[in-house]
Amino acid sequence: MITRIGHTLQLSSPANILSYAAVGGKKEAEGPLGAYFDAVFDDTTLGAPSFEKAESALQSQALRLALQKANLRAEALQMVLAGDLLNQCISSTFAMRDLGLPFLGLYGACSTMALSLGLACVLAACGAATPVAAITSSHFASAERQFRLPLEYGGQRPPTAQWTATAAGCVIITTQPKALQIPHVCFGSIVDLGVHDAANMGAAMAPAAAQTLSQYLRDTHTLPGDYDGIFTGDLGAVGSDLFTQLMHREGFPMPANHHDCGLLLFDRDKQDVHAGGSGCGCSASVLCSTILPAMRQGSLKNILFLATGALMSPTSSQQGESIPGIAHLVHIIRTPPDPPGA
Amino acid sequence: MITRIGHTLQLSSPANILSYAAVGGKKEAEGPLGAYFDAVFDDTTLGAPSFEKAESALQSQALRLALQKANLRAEALQMVLAGDLLNQCISSTFAMRDLGLPFLGLYGACSTMALSLGLACVLAACGAATPVAAITSSHFASAERQFRLPLEYGGQRPPTAQWTATAAGCVIITTQPKALQIPHVCFGSIVDLGVHDAANMGAAMAPAAAQTLSQYLRDTHTLPGDYDGIFTGDLGAVGSDLFTQLMHREGFPMPANHHDCGLLLFDRDKQDVHAGGSGCGCSASVLCSTILPAMRQGSLKNILFLATGALMSPTSSQQGESIPGIAHLVHIIRTPPDPPGA
Repeated sequence: MITRIGHTLQLSSPANILSYAAVGGKKEAEGPLGAYFDAVFDDTTLGAPSFEKAESALQSQALRLALQKANLRAEALQMVLAGDLLNQCISSTFAMRDLGLPFLGLYGACSTMALSLGLACVLAACGAATPVAAITSSHFASAERQFRLPLEYGGQRPPTAQWTATAAGCVIITTQPKALQIPHVCFGSIVDLGVHDAANMGAAMAPAAAQTLSQYLRDTHTLPGDYDGIFTGDLGAVGSDLFTQLMHREGFPMPANHHDCGLLLFDRDKQDVHAGGSGCGCSASVLCSTILPAMRQGSLKNILFLATGALMSPTSSQQGESIPGIAHLVHIIRTPPDPPGA
Repeated sequence: MITRIGHTLQLSSPANILSYAAVGGKKEAEGPLGAYFDAVFDDTTLGAPSFEKAESALQSQALRLALQKANLRAEALQMVLAGDLLNQCISSTFAMRDLGLPFLGLYGACSTMALSLGLACVLAACGAATPVAAITSSHFASAERQFRLPLEYGGQRPPTAQWTATAAGCVIITTQPKALQIPHVCFGSIVDLGVHDAANMGAAMAPAAAQTLSQYLRDTHTLPGDYDGIFTGDLGAVGSDLFTQLMHREGFPMPANHHDCGLLLFDRDKQDVHAGGSGCGCSASVLCSTILPAMRQGSLKNILFLATGALMSPTSSQQGESIPGIAHLVHIIRTPPDPPGA
């Protein structure tokens, strides 16, 4: 069952992580986390005839590998939750088309991994679906031509801009006891402080991240220092600085345990990604390649995953609108000692 | 709690309908259901500077009226679930931006009312959120220019084409006993039989509707005739015919209790909508203007709401892809006798 404490959902029969997988493209393979991915593709088309179909293939691969690591067939899943950045979420739809499984389509922009994972945990905890998969993806080339300019145009990027990750992540949730558990989920509210610059998403999303985290900390009577790591989604360099300032103002100065997936995925000195990585696949792939393996291994035991999204579209920006942000939070713990079969 | 029977979720502590509201545009006001809407707008811009912002205003109005009818302030809601057809779901985002409420963004194309309503019921039944609102919308002018052609072009429409409703619907779910209850929800799987014609969405969605309904009937050991009404979302004339044929083939011949929201919303003889209405707002507004009031009044007591979605995008169609369909089902009953305060 689920108990509500403020805005935070406490899962009294916790949802557990059965399996996970991360896949990425060439640039992600060359980054500091490249070696930790389950699969990387030097040809970022994955042999598909379009970038959109390549992104679908990333989702299919992430799901396939997560299933394989759990020794599970796709038919064993009781539900699939997925979303992405493309118009009408076609990467997810076409990746899940042939599965024949109950499918919930989600849209949370770059917050989608926390949205889908959090909702999967709620659905597992309440008996609606187990095992259940949460998947999301992004692709640099499909995102650039949809949100910004065709690659061929060679548009210049300001220093605040972030680089959309070509990556996907998949987590499979079960009610069976496992080493990694999710005791809390906190779905965030939309926050819009009036940032209009679509090349500065970090600034637009930072206030939402600060609000969701503050809300969760107040709900659970905990402090940032109580966690081994607080991983924001893709605030990048600019957004991370603002997030730290806002958390200080909320009365929660952030210790050194704050990391941003957008800053972890790429080497900003060598990889020309300006303010860092972004995209649904950024936080999803860092979670599944690096954070969850570190938890399983025991070097992290108690973390918050706080993916952030900028809920604008090119149309809303062209019509003069500011950029609404949102952030969803998932609390993940490692239970000692390991239950059997974990 | 929730029990899973096949793919169907049985809500053992049922979710109840606290309130609902439907709003529509000029053409919807002139249709057979016009008199039943809570508010209609002769000026379909609603005074907003763009069609996209007008669509956001439709969602805001639907929520405002549903709250007003329940004598509830927005702050009382514990969660809001919304989605729409626009790229990056901006009608929902901008409508919900200033609420400060936990927000789950969904994408199910025209199936979104059943997706959001079904998920709201699950979240209420398991203790995650009550009251919780499910909202969706569509707008003829924003959909035409995004999915098809600018209105000024005056493109010709084939007879299979449907007319996107300018409308929104909102349902507020509570765990408190009320006359209208939701005992079952069945989330559908994607079905794609290879229909490529984006001007014939009914044909693309009919197989998904037939699959979800057949699945639900088998799971619950019921027959179509056991219900007062089975309301598909927006199959239109072409899709409804195909749906009936497919149900016959599945071993469930459909009695005269099948109605399609796309055929109910407009008068096809007088309103030039070709195969009928469509859009997230079509089934949402027919549900909230007509079906739920008829249930509250007692003329309907046991219905299935089966909204259908076509999960394509202009990009996927341009890249030669067929149109994946999906349908989600919500079972709504009227409990006799009325509990106090219903």
